[in-house]
Amino acid sequence: MTPAGTRLTPVTTPAEELVTSLAYNDAGLVCAVVQQFDTREVLMVAWMDAEALRRTLETGRGTYFSRSRREYWIKGETSGNTQRVIDVRRDCDGDTLLVLVDQTGVACHTGTRSCFDSAPAVRPAALRPAVEQA
Amino acid sequence: MTPAGTRLTPVTTPAEELVTSLAYNDAGLVCAVVQQFDTREVLMVAWMDAEALRRTLETGRGTYFSRSRREYWIKGETSGNTQRVIDVRRDCDGDTLLVLVDQTGVACHTGTRSCFDSAPAVRPAALRPAVEQA
Repeated sequence: MTPAGTRLTPVTTPAEELVTSLAYNDAGLVCAVVQQFDTREVLMVAWMDAEALRRTLETGRGTYFSRSRREYWIKGETSGNTQRVIDVRRDCDGDTLLVLVDQTGVACHTGTRSCFDSAPAVRPAALRPAVEQA
Repeated sequence: MTPAGTRLTPVTTPAEELVTSLAYNDAGLVCAVVQQFDTREVLMVAWMDAEALRRTLETGRGTYFSRSRREYWIKGETSGNTQRVIDVRRDCDGDTLLVLVDQTGVACHTGTRSCFDSAPAVRPAALRPAVEQA
């Protein structure tokens, strides 16, 4: 099945194996959770289609698909707050990726390090002091 | 506007403020990234509608909405691998939640601690040794 002269080249790569293993949604997308590799801070969540994932794994730059603009975007391309991708892992059912990156500067367009920094954390009722539950 | 006798009760709670602030998708859901609060390991990604979020914030138990079964499920209710919710944070555009939990046992139904533990991590081509790129 393999053409002569190419038998030293893998039939598929780990990157392509990952791309083809995923359970994309009806829009052809998987959810990508982006985490700083050393501090383990969750920086942002974005979406990738197969091509965005291929570009990410080829270039090492976090590349996503914008659902609203319907176009690819490379993190930091305009802001300079780039993401060097360390590795990409799929979850057990293949509809989510965990992208470990080294984030330059801030990850959020609002200017905070993480997209989860801009609003207060809400604790469950059982953990709140009684005075707050009056 | 506030009825007499209730003015010491907040008009709304932090929990309800969070519930009503979110940008739910067409199916009424937001993505929930679940992270172990101390190790910062990303354990799983699931989905919540407004009611699942309310239940989570009322009970302190991670409660999600199953898109395939179209029903609520409480993490660990059958397996015993429960999640005590520490707090919930929304992202900048309100379509994703970060749920910090204390996970008992394993988070993944496959038996691994995290849903991202079951497949090998794939590194970008630029980071792979040359021998792998032959």
